[in-house]
Amino acid sequence: MAFVPNSIITLTTDFGLDDPFAGIMKGVILSVNPEAKIVDITHGVPAQDILAGSLMLQSSCAYFPKGTIHVAVVDPGVGSGRRPLLALGGDYAFVGPDNGLLARVIESQQHVRVFHLTEQAYCLKPVSRTFHGRDIFAPVAAWLARGISPELFGPLVDDWIRLDWPSPRPIGPGRLQGTVLHIDRFGNLMTNISQEHLSEARAGFEIVLGNSKINRLCWSYAEAADGEPFAILGSAGLLEISVKRASAAEQLGVRRLQEFEVRFF
Amino acid sequence: MAFVPNSIITLTTDFGLDDPFAGIMKGVILSVNPEAKIVDITHGVPAQDILAGSLMLQSSCAYFPKGTIHVAVVDPGVGSGRRPLLALGGDYAFVGPDNGLLARVIESQQHVRVFHLTEQAYCLKPVSRTFHGRDIFAPVAAWLARGISPELFGPLVDDWIRLDWPSPRPIGPGRLQGTVLHIDRFGNLMTNISQEHLSEARAGFEIVLGNSKINRLCWSYAEAADGEPFAILGSAGLLEISVKRASAAEQLGVRRLQEFEVRFF
Amino acid sequence: MAFVPNSIITLTTDFGLDDPFAGIMKGVILSVNPEAKIVDITHGVPAQDILAGSLMLQSSCAYFPKGTIHVAVVDPGVGSGRRPLLALGGDYAFVGPDNGLLARVIESQQHVRVFHLTEQAYCLKPVSRTFHGRDIFAPVAAWLARGISPELFGPLVDDWIRLDWPSPRPIGPGRLQGTVLHIDRFGNLMTNISQEHLSEARAGFEIVLGNSKINRLCWSYAEAADGEPFAILGSAGLLEISVKRASAAEQLGVRRLQEFEVRFF
Repeated sequence: MAFVPNSIITLTTDFGLDDPFAGIMKGVILSVNPEAKIVDITHGVPAQDILAGSLMLQSSCAYFPKGTIHVAVVDPGVGSGRRPLLALGGDYAFVGPDNGLLARVIESQQHVRVFHLTEQAYCLKPVSRTFHGRDIFAPVAAWLARGISPELFGPLVDDWIRLDWPSPRPIGPGRLQGTVLHIDRFGNLMTNISQEHLSEARAGFEIVLGNSKINRLCWSYAEAADGEPFAILGSAGLLEISVKRASAAEQLGVRRLQEFEVRFF
Repeated sequence: MAFVPNSIITLTTDFGLDDPFAGIMKGVILSVNPEAKIVDITHGVPAQDILAGSLMLQSSCAYFPKGTIHVAVVDPGVGSGRRPLLALGGDYAFVGPDNGLLARVIESQQHVRVFHLTEQAYCLKPVSRTFHGRDIFAPVAAWLARGISPELFGPLVDDWIRLDWPSPRPIGPGRLQGTVLHIDRFGNLMTNISQEHLSEARAGFEIVLGNSKINRLCWSYAEAADGEPFAILGSAGLLEISVKRASAAEQLGVRRLQEFEVRFF
Repeated sequence: MAFVPNSIITLTTDFGLDDPFAGIMKGVILSVNPEAKIVDITHGVPAQDILAGSLMLQSSCAYFPKGTIHVAVVDPGVGSGRRPLLALGGDYAFVGPDNGLLARVIESQQHVRVFHLTEQAYCLKPVSRTFHGRDIFAPVAAWLARGISPELFGPLVDDWIRLDWPSPRPIGPGRLQGTVLHIDRFGNLMTNISQEHLSEARAGFEIVLGNSKINRLCWSYAEAADGEPFAILGSAGLLEISVKRASAAEQLGVRRLQEFEVRFF
């Protein structure tokens, strides 16, 4: 099935909202395509954190209608040789830099085609060395939403950069090493352990994270006791570690990308 | 008069903008109702602060066109037995958790009807225990904007949770105890004292707040002197305490929910 | 050429996003003009920083389609005698306070006409002394987008407040004094030195900023070495000083409006 654009274009960046960068991208999009409906997924990806950007894009994109164009810009290599990409699956299109940011969503789509954006006609002129969100990714998304055929943006490629994703690693019988992928606003720790991994547990489990041991699984934040760390299946389908009415990150002294052990009984 | 939806849906949450939660809600809304116009009131309600969320919703909702659907999510009890609600007045509809967050706006509407959202057909499947903004409130608002009759979402209820709102309290002749409800970005202190309370003053007033006494009422920020604390009738119709070009909260050492005394002469 | 509005209204303010002020302005706009398409440029202008607001507006406005109405509110003098203004050029309209905030964009437009907003019929009633973004600027922009003739908002004026813009200053042969105008989210230092100034350099240049000397010009962030300060032509066409994968502001100990010297060889 070919990708058929609706008029929705989403933005996921590390630009923050204190500077006008996201606003400028919206101006460029609307200049090309006044009918575009622009939706912010977030501009709060931690600066230059490709892994977090990838995670946020992946956990959000499928909640949008089929035909949505997702633009993602976490781009420490802007202005270097790194390629700008357009990836089309049957359901969604993704526009962004070739640095691993799009790899997970590309792999999640069926019949995906990836194009190297080389056609200058669909970019601002001149293309700067510092702001491809404005000069390439925004206008390409807007032209795609207007119905420009994807082949016109540049050649097909299949060697896009893969992402070095921290997967859970077995480290012994009934033992798994996991990683804290992201810490959210409430201090919840989002891990790379999924519901499938947890099903290994017959009698229970224990998470050893820094100096803490966590063996309680809650189904909702409400059932936990105040101040007690617990595990919960988060809204993205991944195991999270939380403390009710407090920041698990602060209370447990945990940093992003910290590793931990899960023991299943 | 029955509620007639326009296509506007507003969002007021404590999700912040660094995570993709607000963006995900927008995706869900647009998946149900591509014609929806989504407007953020704020996602900066202090985490789990039902009182502040209530205040922000109440001070904002009436500036929107009649027929607007206001979604509010400050939801520490998500996943517990707390009910999801839809409230319809003649002018506005409100969607959110039954924890007091909607109580003040429900009471401010005439001929209000409140429904317990029980009908799964208008929710995402499965409904998670951690993110009802995505799974219940967003899709219900989108279906309502599409014209679904409110009775179809669930049964009428009249025992919604009331909010324990800190009202000003007389503590002697010409003396009132007030509370700082909220501190805004500029450090202004929003109180629960309204224009009506102030009209008690014949000759003047004095506010005793911590170690500070404030007896100047200004009509605009501009007329105050730099560094001098003053009282002003804020844009929400409530008395505020400010310091020109400085943060009153920092300068006076005041915290949210701190009490103070007003003496009228 | 007369200004012909499209339906786009942008907002640039120092209100932040934690309070509902920006959301309230959107409600007011949609109440007057349900067809308006509202786009945030930013609400993160540093509080009451007219210079930064001016810079952000100027660097963003031209990326929007012709006919866009730009509303800007950084307004320490709200409620005083300072006038509310509407400025129309051939391409864009600007609405905001008469405090210098609009001066640079007014001067950048051809055949510009500036109106003093005196007609109460297009304002909320009553107009408060504390929130003209809500009571004057938002509804005027919405009425203008609906096609109200600009003459109806009030009389023409030509004595709007000019902005005291820090221009680069020659301080000797081949020596220029520059100013750091703004520090962005990544800690990059945006200066008032433009591409034209840099063309003075024949053999090279040296920037003396606090205790640091910077003589490397990079064309992209990617070509710099980690931790090394460098100069780069930023996306707004102005010289910026950056440190790769670090905050130049922190590493070099630089504050907003700090002056520095450029020596050309």
